[in-house]
Amino acid sequence: MMTPDAAARLLERWNECGFYRMIGMQVTRADDQGSEFQIEIRPEHLQAYGTAHGGILAGLVDAAMGLAILGRAPEGEGCATIELKVNFLAPAWPGALKARGRVVHEGRRIVVAQGEAAAADGSLVAVGTGTFQRIPAASQ
Amino acid sequence: MMTPDAAARLLERWNECGFYRMIGMQVTRADDQGSEFQIEIRPEHLQAYGTAHGGILAGLVDAAMGLAILGRAPEGEGCATIELKVNFLAPAWPGALKARGRVVHEGRRIVVAQGEAAAADGSLVAVGTGTFQRIPAASQ
Amino acid sequence: MMTPDAAARLLERWNECGFYRMIGMQVTRADDQGSEFQIEIRPEHLQAYGTAHGGILAGLVDAAMGLAILGRAPEGEGCATIELKVNFLAPAWPGALKARGRVVHEGRRIVVAQGEAAAADGSLVAVGTGTFQRIPAASQ
Amino acid sequence: MMTPDAAARLLERWNECGFYRMIGMQVTRADDQGSEFQIEIRPEHLQAYGTAHGGILAGLVDAAMGLAILGRAPEGEGCATIELKVNFLAPAWPGALKARGRVVHEGRRIVVAQGEAAAADGSLVAVGTGTFQRIPAASQ
Repeated sequence: MMTPDAAARLLERWNECGFYRMIGMQVTRADDQGSEFQIEIRPEHLQAYGTAHGGILAGLVDAAMGLAILGRAPEGEGCATIELKVNFLAPAWPGALKARGRVVHEGRRIVVAQGEAAAADGSLVAVGTGTFQRIPAASQ
Repeated sequence: MMTPDAAARLLERWNECGFYRMIGMQVTRADDQGSEFQIEIRPEHLQAYGTAHGGILAGLVDAAMGLAILGRAPEGEGCATIELKVNFLAPAWPGALKARGRVVHEGRRIVVAQGEAAAADGSLVAVGTGTFQRIPAASQ
Repeated sequence: MMTPDAAARLLERWNECGFYRMIGMQVTRADDQGSEFQIEIRPEHLQAYGTAHGGILAGLVDAAMGLAILGRAPEGEGCATIELKVNFLAPAWPGALKARGRVVHEGRRIVVAQGEAAAADGSLVAVGTGTFQRIPAASQ
Repeated sequence: MMTPDAAARLLERWNECGFYRMIGMQVTRADDQGSEFQIEIRPEHLQAYGTAHGGILAGLVDAAMGLAILGRAPEGEGCATIELKVNFLAPAWPGALKARGRVVHEGRRIVVAQGEAAAADGSLVAVGTGTFQRIPAASQ
């Protein structure tokens, strides 16, 4: 299990990366039980119909799954999304969203995770599954 | 088939929406043969490993599929992504990407499309398939 | 909620269909809480490497999701799989498998479900997500 | 490239496996250009609504993608499906179906393929994408 310091470094590293900052998404937890994210849907996230673009929701679910994997991995190990599938269950209107990720299966090289995003009232707006490749610490 | 004026209005409407502007993605063509997009991958698109976040690539492929559908639809008809699956084939480093979408099957209510994104040298970085629901003009 | 008689008719109808009988798969429960299936993996289910072919596992997970939907639907309503995504987590060797399905989101026309298959020791061999279209009773 | 003898052995090996024989599916070509399959949809392939069960179509598309990969691989190398996504575009009624697979991207360990199945009149009934893991000859 990750030390509290290592967990704090993981969150800090990701919350500072370009994509998280551009869309205003934060990872608030990533440990061996899974990950939690928050984002406020704003005008710059919207498609022409006035709800969040699929890229925002797919990015949020992808990130939630990836950080759930990193929250269980030895410090320094990375992971890369091989593929991602997201079902969009309801429009995501401007306002707060939360997302969670959890690991479904850990293989030696391949890890499968699931994630979901929900509106402030708890109703699901997206669910997803992703396949990830471990990137050993030494090879980064 | 869409008139040139209707096609121009379609591109203008989408290129002005919040998500397209935030990530700097443009649709350059959307007609009955498919869609074409361009984007320049920049620091604000990157995850912590220095390549484009999955949300950028998924959003690009989602958009390419959606505009391929709208490029064949009667003016005023919309579409919503029901689900999206993207395979990430190679890291997308900073620089230009192009994407294309095409319709695979048009049902009465459901349309299936495929999309892909490629680096400047033509090598694929992502391929995707999506399922979309038509939104009749009257119901928007 | 379905009456016990209606639930029994649902199971009987599906357990008699050609595909279920050919592969020896049975639905043992389908109600508003989800579905349960069983199958014995036998030589005729195997690919050339000696484990169950993806078509068996995909068919099992598809069926588990579909019957979870029908277990909540008014009698006579049907559903059709629009698309299906399955992750194969471990080889399924000859022996007993159980599968379960549950509904994730019920829309007016579209329903999303998830399913999984596990070996006798409880370890997961496959997880899947599917998108289904309701078929009203009157239109069949 | 595979020798004609190696290609013949590949087809023979797979056409004799349990699943192919049970459902009556044959691979008729597998080389560096892709794969081709045929199947006759019969009563034992049907679900309760009278068209081919998703497990048949998913199995057909999975097989077409897998053999497209093996048709390009060194003799003795295998592949395992990590995950599979299939869109069902139209009901597959009893009668002949053909399927084809092709490789989209070959990585060192991961290969992505696409496949499709079509009715006798050429109309598509299913399209799919799959992610596969190479299994080196020595490790089987």
